[in-house]
Amino acid sequence: MENKIRIGICGYGNLGKGVEQAIKQAPDMELKVIFTRRNPQELAKTTVTPVVAIQEAEQWEKKLDVVILCGGSKDDIPKQMPEFASKFNTINTFDTHADIPMLYTKTEEIAKKAGKLSLISTGWDPGLFSLIRVLAKSIFTEAKLYTVWGTGVSQGHSDAIRQIEGVKNAIQYTVPIEERIEQIRNGEEVEYTASQLHKRECYVAANKEDYAQIEKEIKEMPKYFADYETTVTFVTEEEIKEKQTKMFHGGSVICVGKTPAGNKQVMEFKLTLDSNPEFTGSVATMYARAITRLNKKGETGARLVTEIPFQDILPEEENEKFQYI
Amino acid sequence: MENKIRIGICGYGNLGKGVEQAIKQAPDMELKVIFTRRNPQELAKTTVTPVVAIQEAEQWEKKLDVVILCGGSKDDIPKQMPEFASKFNTINTFDTHADIPMLYTKTEEIAKKAGKLSLISTGWDPGLFSLIRVLAKSIFTEAKLYTVWGTGVSQGHSDAIRQIEGVKNAIQYTVPIEERIEQIRNGEEVEYTASQLHKRECYVAANKEDYAQIEKEIKEMPKYFADYETTVTFVTEEEIKEKQTKMFHGGSVICVGKTPAGNKQVMEFKLTLDSNPEFTGSVATMYARAITRLNKKGETGARLVTEIPFQDILPEEENEKFQYI
Repeated sequence: MENKIRIGICGYGNLGKGVEQAIKQAPDMELKVIFTRRNPQELAKTTVTPVVAIQEAEQWEKKLDVVILCGGSKDDIPKQMPEFASKFNTINTFDTHADIPMLYTKTEEIAKKAGKLSLISTGWDPGLFSLIRVLAKSIFTEAKLYTVWGTGVSQGHSDAIRQIEGVKNAIQYTVPIEERIEQIRNGEEVEYTASQLHKRECYVAANKEDYAQIEKEIKEMPKYFADYETTVTFVTEEEIKEKQTKMFHGGSVICVGKTPAGNKQVMEFKLTLDSNPEFTGSVATMYARAITRLNKKGETGARLVTEIPFQDILPEEENEKFQYI
Repeated sequence: MENKIRIGICGYGNLGKGVEQAIKQAPDMELKVIFTRRNPQELAKTTVTPVVAIQEAEQWEKKLDVVILCGGSKDDIPKQMPEFASKFNTINTFDTHADIPMLYTKTEEIAKKAGKLSLISTGWDPGLFSLIRVLAKSIFTEAKLYTVWGTGVSQGHSDAIRQIEGVKNAIQYTVPIEERIEQIRNGEEVEYTASQLHKRECYVAANKEDYAQIEKEIKEMPKYFADYETTVTFVTEEEIKEKQTKMFHGGSVICVGKTPAGNKQVMEFKLTLDSNPEFTGSVATMYARAITRLNKKGETGARLVTEIPFQDILPEEENEKFQYI
């Protein structure tokens, strides 16, 4: 295929690797370069893609259609966005919900000035789940809307446990409480908060004498665990390492609408993922099509997934208007 | 709320009534008029909305933002579209898949010339399911994609049974074969055609002496039943009438993707509807926002759901960019 979409990745952790895999499966894209803060020579040993120091990214300005920022939301994306959005079309999976408007405003200004287009906060949540929430609230403005996550690892909660004195390593699974979710699906008249829909399973490595104190501290930790049904299981460091290699995750958006005639209408969008970073990578990659096309048509600035017409995410050869209608 | 979206309905069958109910729940819309081919005086007794003969529709040209065409796909929409699309923004739920491109082309020409905008083929399938199919094939171009319908009535199959000699009345339910769908959901390596994923349950009223012959004719009917696991149950005409009052339906789009690393990623969008026409009506109604807004911005011609940005389907007061991200 001629004129493949030329993609650069910034950051080669789990998500960067997920994007690399997704591009392999996309008939209309090619991965041109990986930008890294690490030693490019070292990283180059682990991938067939050219690896370049992040400082040299601007030399690629004319050679790429989109750069996918695969760093973390806490430090990497806020720092890298201004630099990249002023030179490239970009895509990121920024997921600190409260800070999305700020990042959007900044990006809008920078990308507009540069004549480039940047997609903010794609992935599955935010991302696909955002689309479904908008759909649900548009169909039923009064609908009850539930978002359920898991079973899967919460990085934030795992980190929180690791801060506790005596903890050698830890991993935390967010687990949906299926009986309650089943009630929602069945349209029963129930009302649950997020903490009533999930339990938190913690696996912790520590010395035996610290077990009691650690368990207490976890279960009493405000916001993170205190409001949740929480279990703590002590295991070896090896068992935690083993668990950390598995990256399954998933979740649902469930909307229960009720018509004036009293009819229940239940809509559910559900993901069951063997690999969370590979799926997030696939979604980010898919949007490279839309961002490239829309920028070619003259669109600049920042965009959310809700501002992208669906037709523009399909590969060109699949982009026949009526194929999936 | 000022400046509500002013809607007209053309056709006051199940779908028209569904749209009427949906508008009641939409804070930003008002139903101004129902156009009918029937006697307006008679119909006016059954609704509080003004009822007007379809021939007088053009007098409403300046008084409506959108007309939702609620007639059937076989005769009504193809006939009414040219008339309405040349004077109004319109929305229809045209669902004869093979004829969608033709209707689109015709509408594009008529609406463009008139400076109006028309949305073709919304509802849940085609409609929401189309969006999900596009999403799935954009994320995983190689994915296996399944659409499952039911449990719910198939009007076409019920009609087909009624054509058989001796049949007094009949209703046919399309029923998904759950064990097989569960295999798909679980990512098992199976491959099923539509006829292997659904069974057909037929309820028929007839005289006893015709039972054997009717059952044989149904089960051997090509396309409709011969390829399917089909059951025929003989019941009274009253039982069929009773069944015809219930309009539940639903279905799923299931996509099973596999990454180069062999990870399975399953995505499912599922509807469980107490009322099929009310849900279809809700979806059609929601798009009145997008069609009105986009036409005000100068867009004209025909559109499919895949060509409408999500942000434009939300009510104005909900239309805060970041609310559902």
